[in-house]
Amino acid sequence: MSGVSYREFEALAHRLADRAGEIQRRYFRTPVSVETKADASPVTIADREAEAAMRELILAAYPDHGILGEEHGSEALDAEFVWVLDPIDGTKSFITGRPLFGTLIALAHQGRPVVGLIDQTILRERWIGSLGAASAWNGRPIRTRPCPRLEDAVLFTTSPLLFEPGAERAAYTRVEARVRLPMFGGDCYAYGLLAAGFADLVIEAGLAPYDFMALAPVVEGAGGRITDWQGQPLHLGSSGQVLAAGDARTHAAATTLLSDDGAF
Amino acid sequence: MSGVSYREFEALAHRLADRAGEIQRRYFRTPVSVETKADASPVTIADREAEAAMRELILAAYPDHGILGEEHGSEALDAEFVWVLDPIDGTKSFITGRPLFGTLIALAHQGRPVVGLIDQTILRERWIGSLGAASAWNGRPIRTRPCPRLEDAVLFTTSPLLFEPGAERAAYTRVEARVRLPMFGGDCYAYGLLAAGFADLVIEAGLAPYDFMALAPVVEGAGGRITDWQGQPLHLGSSGQVLAAGDARTHAAATTLLSDDGAF
Repeated sequence: MSGVSYREFEALAHRLADRAGEIQRRYFRTPVSVETKADASPVTIADREAEAAMRELILAAYPDHGILGEEHGSEALDAEFVWVLDPIDGTKSFITGRPLFGTLIALAHQGRPVVGLIDQTILRERWIGSLGAASAWNGRPIRTRPCPRLEDAVLFTTSPLLFEPGAERAAYTRVEARVRLPMFGGDCYAYGLLAAGFADLVIEAGLAPYDFMALAPVVEGAGGRITDWQGQPLHLGSSGQVLAAGDARTHAAATTLLSDDGAF
Repeated sequence: MSGVSYREFEALAHRLADRAGEIQRRYFRTPVSVETKADASPVTIADREAEAAMRELILAAYPDHGILGEEHGSEALDAEFVWVLDPIDGTKSFITGRPLFGTLIALAHQGRPVVGLIDQTILRERWIGSLGAASAWNGRPIRTRPCPRLEDAVLFTTSPLLFEPGAERAAYTRVEARVRLPMFGGDCYAYGLLAAGFADLVIEAGLAPYDFMALAPVVEGAGGRITDWQGQPLHLGSSGQVLAAGDARTHAAATTLLSDDGAF
């Protein structure tokens, strides 16, 4: 693929985010009804409407592309290109009136994320990244910051309850105990702050592809590393244990602690 | 005190917040140098400048009032009226570029908070409350929402690491295990969301008077309850274990669980 082609896909990603944002701003801090899904996560009419609107735009532009969405399921996942959509990542923030949720839009090529967009529509903040290009935050290029030592790192995670009690939580806690500043809350917004050089690590678990696929191009295009906890690149079939770092050295140190070997 | 007199103090609180906000917006997301205090909490030049500017305005308006500030210490704490200032509550959010920090301004009369203001200057959101009056969010009156059962509650806390390992953390965890939705991050902003009817409980510990005094009039003037973990009203000498609830029934249930009796 040439850079020119990604630019065309980026343009569509922007249009999708614009449309999703309009819908979200209409419902934010209004009394929306909240349903609880089988996995106990909440969903709102703003989620459903935003995803439906984005799917329509994708099908009109690229009828042969596949779509994987959080709310309306999947179609043509065997297509060369698959759009991966989370209309509201951080629905819990959305329903509590906290403007840290975001729209996540990724384009996967043969299962690998090649374009990623994070949009916070209330704050009017948008991150976009694509393979081989510098990531941008509201149009300005961004870089992660250096952080050679884990002991100096600012670490974000949305909630300690993301981690399954037992080995997974213990692994996270090994890192938390070493960093300078462990912080909580924020969903996709934390990855945006990391990409922009305001944090050094994000560690999460239990994420679905629509939660993490869009993050990868943004973090990587800013000079950071984002993988699963074993250090493998993210793809549609990844485990959902996600580790992002602004500096490859912090990433390596965290990977060691997150692996079982780190226990000793 | 008559309502008229509080109004005069409210007007000064607004001016203080305006001034602190100007200073914070100048430094937010710029490379500010961060110092670490004895208690490991970070402080920035924006903290120091904002507090100094507020102290100047207070001394000019009420030279006989006392002042207790996070950054520049205290004076005349034996005065009938004492202003209690936290220029940036949530400095960790401030230094990571996350617009959830806030300026906290309280006026204490004989040790009890009678006026409270929470200001988030990046989002241009401000809460104010005073004894005997309805709290307001950007000028609009607000009410907490009903939540009769703990099992339906949305709970906020800034970080699980606020709670000392042992009995204090266990007490918090008893409540966390019962609520519908435990959420993390946000410092004073969480209390603002609770006052506005978007959350039901906030539980924290290890807070100083400048962290909690301003919250009380805002939460109470919106119909909520805010006390220490034993259910006692907050005052300058409170322990720093804070429990806020939008509904008195949730407050009572949480108090029971937070007390030692709740363990059985």
